[in-house]
Amino acid sequence: MLDRIRIVLIGTSHPGNIGAAARAMRNMGLEDLALVTPRCDPRDQEAYSRASGANTLVDAARQFDALEAAVADRTLVVGASARSRHLPWPMVSPRALAEGLPQALASDGARIALVFGREDTGLTNAELQRCHQHVHIPTNPDFSSLNLAAAVQVLAYECRQAFLAIDETATPAANATTGEADQPFGVEWDNPPATHADLERFFVHLESTLTAIDFHDPDNPRQLMARLRRLFMRAHLDSMEMNILRGILGTIDKRLHDRS
Amino acid sequence: MLDRIRIVLIGTSHPGNIGAAARAMRNMGLEDLALVTPRCDPRDQEAYSRASGANTLVDAARQFDALEAAVADRTLVVGASARSRHLPWPMVSPRALAEGLPQALASDGARIALVFGREDTGLTNAELQRCHQHVHIPTNPDFSSLNLAAAVQVLAYECRQAFLAIDETATPAANATTGEADQPFGVEWDNPPATHADLERFFVHLESTLTAIDFHDPDNPRQLMARLRRLFMRAHLDSMEMNILRGILGTIDKRLHDRS
Repeated sequence: MLDRIRIVLIGTSHPGNIGAAARAMRNMGLEDLALVTPRCDPRDQEAYSRASGANTLVDAARQFDALEAAVADRTLVVGASARSRHLPWPMVSPRALAEGLPQALASDGARIALVFGREDTGLTNAELQRCHQHVHIPTNPDFSSLNLAAAVQVLAYECRQAFLAIDETATPAANATTGEADQPFGVEWDNPPATHADLERFFVHLESTLTAIDFHDPDNPRQLMARLRRLFMRAHLDSMEMNILRGILGTIDKRLHDRS
Repeated sequence: MLDRIRIVLIGTSHPGNIGAAARAMRNMGLEDLALVTPRCDPRDQEAYSRASGANTLVDAARQFDALEAAVADRTLVVGASARSRHLPWPMVSPRALAEGLPQALASDGARIALVFGREDTGLTNAELQRCHQHVHIPTNPDFSSLNLAAAVQVLAYECRQAFLAIDETATPAANATTGEADQPFGVEWDNPPATHADLERFFVHLESTLTAIDFHDPDNPRQLMARLRRLFMRAHLDSMEMNILRGILGTIDKRLHDRS
């Protein structure tokens, strides 16, 4: 999917922005960069410096004399636009754009261009009107001018999110819910969860030790054990953490015994 | 909501990245920038040049000597992490983080820090272990190193999306989902969250007590304290639970003292 998305930069003034856009693209798995009438040398040292390893994209970037040529083979052209224009145009949010990508790319020949304008003046009305739709990145109304590479970063990130969402649902065994349930903390964990029986034994031990050190009075329990239960249960202890906590309690018991 | 989110940059080398991060923040409506031991002059001309109008954020950025001080008043500390570490830690995607913000900020005293590491080496293990959870921006596995300001841009963008989503539902018509989102654990909680500073004082006390009872050997720490940090940080302790745990430690200390 991502290989059928082209980023088109029109009239870029700062080579650093071209390099930074290339880096943002490659970070998110986009590889197709087109430059329309850049107002700088795209192979300037500053471009490579900001590309920081995405030099291949800078080197491979094709240059065009007009937007028309850069998007000729595209089936969907989307222009990044900060402003609403005189003539209203279909406008989507970055998220809606990304979520629509699988559908937009459903047919074999489908190809997309995301078009970004000049640092100072954006896209012209003529350029905006060459787009099927516009995408607007929601910004602070008091400070709305995004850096060019930052805008590329946001849209490339949203494209990748949409791509990953497809990937997650692509295998028969998997849906997002299952994946989530398998990884309660969002990463592969290093120890299995403690069992309920372990947990109950721990609470018995905890209450016994807290009573022995005179922190807890079973005849006047207030809500102490309930609060400690609530804390440790919502943490979803793993088996090693359980062993550590039992080990701490056992050591406290031993010290008390040493004393007596 | 956005005014209770602090961006913390640790050991930044390039003033341009500080300026670009400030611009990304202000574009998305974030204003609170903290710098921990920057390895450059944050008021360098390059910072202002890349800030491009977000100079006020650069000027207002507070500097700290350690992460600890920059997050002392925070109730949720989230570290941006590119890698999975030896010790798995609760990990969220930028979207899940953003969608959880209304919950995380439900109580009046709640404050969040999003922590970003050095351009070259990221966050240290010690810094990562001061975080309740980590956030990983999904990237191309073949080219995964995001520019610092680009990472700030992506997370700030997601925060703004979550903010705008609340705004859309913040009408009397709001549904059950909204009500749920107002509550950190799905219900109205009885105590405010513990602050980061409280938590760090607890960990100091915990380590001291575990050493005193000979359960922990600071000269051969293995991963004991890291595991206990991970456990108590992901439980998101409230202030009363914190008092109970400190009370237990104090009582153990007293019993040891009685003995000697």
